[in-house]
Amino acid sequence: MSAINRQWTLVKRPEGDDFAAALKWQETAKPVPAEGQALVRTVYLSLDPANRLWMKEEPSYIPPVPLGGPMWGGIIGVVEESRTPEYTVGEFVTGMGGWSDYWLAGANALMKVAPIPGVPLTAFMSALGATGLTAYFGLLDVGKPKAGETLVVSAAAGAVGSIVGQIGKIKGCTVIGIAGSAEKCAKLVHEFGFDHAIDYKKEDVRTRLAELAPARADGGGGVDVYFENVGGEIGNAVFDNLAMRARVALCGMISQYNVVGTPVGADLTKVLMRRATVEGFLILDFFHRAGPAVAELAGWIAEGRLRYNEDIVEGLEHTLEAFGRLFAPGGAHTGKLIVKVSEPPM
Amino acid sequence: MSAINRQWTLVKRPEGDDFAAALKWQETAKPVPAEGQALVRTVYLSLDPANRLWMKEEPSYIPPVPLGGPMWGGIIGVVEESRTPEYTVGEFVTGMGGWSDYWLAGANALMKVAPIPGVPLTAFMSALGATGLTAYFGLLDVGKPKAGETLVVSAAAGAVGSIVGQIGKIKGCTVIGIAGSAEKCAKLVHEFGFDHAIDYKKEDVRTRLAELAPARADGGGGVDVYFENVGGEIGNAVFDNLAMRARVALCGMISQYNVVGTPVGADLTKVLMRRATVEGFLILDFFHRAGPAVAELAGWIAEGRLRYNEDIVEGLEHTLEAFGRLFAPGGAHTGKLIVKVSEPPM
Repeated sequence: MSAINRQWTLVKRPEGDDFAAALKWQETAKPVPAEGQALVRTVYLSLDPANRLWMKEEPSYIPPVPLGGPMWGGIIGVVEESRTPEYTVGEFVTGMGGWSDYWLAGANALMKVAPIPGVPLTAFMSALGATGLTAYFGLLDVGKPKAGETLVVSAAAGAVGSIVGQIGKIKGCTVIGIAGSAEKCAKLVHEFGFDHAIDYKKEDVRTRLAELAPARADGGGGVDVYFENVGGEIGNAVFDNLAMRARVALCGMISQYNVVGTPVGADLTKVLMRRATVEGFLILDFFHRAGPAVAELAGWIAEGRLRYNEDIVEGLEHTLEAFGRLFAPGGAHTGKLIVKVSEPPM
Repeated sequence: MSAINRQWTLVKRPEGDDFAAALKWQETAKPVPAEGQALVRTVYLSLDPANRLWMKEEPSYIPPVPLGGPMWGGIIGVVEESRTPEYTVGEFVTGMGGWSDYWLAGANALMKVAPIPGVPLTAFMSALGATGLTAYFGLLDVGKPKAGETLVVSAAAGAVGSIVGQIGKIKGCTVIGIAGSAEKCAKLVHEFGFDHAIDYKKEDVRTRLAELAPARADGGGGVDVYFENVGGEIGNAVFDNLAMRARVALCGMISQYNVVGTPVGADLTKVLMRRATVEGFLILDFFHRAGPAVAELAGWIAEGRLRYNEDIVEGLEHTLEAFGRLFAPGGAHTGKLIVKVSEPPM
């Protein structure tokens, strides 16, 4: 690799979706590890909706990314140089890195990746990484679906949503996905095995849900588990169809991240009437239980019961435009969005 | 009593707070019980924010009150005539009745009230009735406060709110109440023993909470339990100050009940970031556990640890105007609003 470090520097907090004004391409010298650090070369960079929150001035679940430095992102990298026994040259590591060729990793900053034969390395940032684990723990630990219940997933064709729906099927639920195009809806049903798909651009979500999961006179029926990725009007259309004792696993609210001004709030009327629960969760809290979860996810993949899509963009220079696609309504990407920054060494 | 039955008839679904157009005073013949029914004379009528929801066309947790008949309300009454062994003439009963002099009770419709010497009958519709039980189960079962935690209550000077705060103190919490006048705030601190009170008409709730329950750099601090009675902007100001793993016990959203058009939704950003839980509850689900709860509440009252206020209005004819006071912001009532419809027989 060159002695140059290319990076996307966060120069200001973005307004709405004007990412181009906030992120500038820069080339600096390759960083040099201090004692106790390792130099990691980025192989893959993960692009996720939550990155948008990290760009804001207000702290989210991590501190705001400092202005003047590289934007942060999940990476898989390879150790190129090490001044600590913790990291060995040539090994794969994963965790928080930068939108950059290189990253200096301190103590306990990155975890090792143990490649599984036959499984592509990128799986560790999609179905077997934070994406898959978010779906797994958010659905099973927070949503607590029971066989026979109705599960609704928004942003269902997205990286997390498509895995949520498939785990829902494995657990015996009736699964309804909400997505933003006919192509995505067809994919949900035919590729991922969802029972139903609602195209929110063409159909009225509130009405369709009332047809697909009708509330009955005895108080039964409705949506038992809602895996919430989008918030806003779509979220409220699902909230309005909640079943008695429904559980909403609040994973994200992507429709609101770029909003300038007052966001669309959640209508909690039915949460009250139906004695439902809305619970926010972050995958950070579950990483200590990742081992058995990755094993179970890998098993489902091997059995052909869990499919996942990756949308791999070649070249760090295309990061900015790829990131914008995450927020295009009914967006142009399907599957986990990953930037290939450099070649893996094998 | 006369052979006339006076009642407030629900003639249309109210628009906003125009209750006068929706409820008409009527005098009809005293009803006659059929086989299996008892004739109950209303002694006390409870006026509660939830009554507003029952007036709407959309079903809430009970069916909408039918147009053309008496408005429904919680009553304490005395059995005047009985054509069923279930009810005995002269005994006190409580449950759902009407805004009327008389009510016909069918099988299992009303529960017996066993008066406690020295405790006024009205306590069974305030501190020892649905009001006290709502505070008790909502706080303890849904909010799950631990000693040392910070509890926030909105509509804190109201019938439910004032009991919630006092139970919070009994359980060792720091208790902050939000109310709409200096008088109410003084009462919260000096009569009910709250640690702090915020006057939402004079102070910025968001800022004051951030001062009284600051989030710390280590992730601690903030509001651990929020007993939500009001929704809207006040609710969002509290949501914005939630602690890690906070619990919101969603009891009601009175600020939104009369809203015509789009209500103010809940901003769930911090519910996500702080991994908080919002849980709706209705006292209906807890009535089967009322016995021990009433005993504990009565014990606290006897020990002088739990105070309650009643605002007793004399005369069924004043029901409409009294009901309107429930919805006046920073309203004119303090304590449980009760209409005395007739004299108790003792």
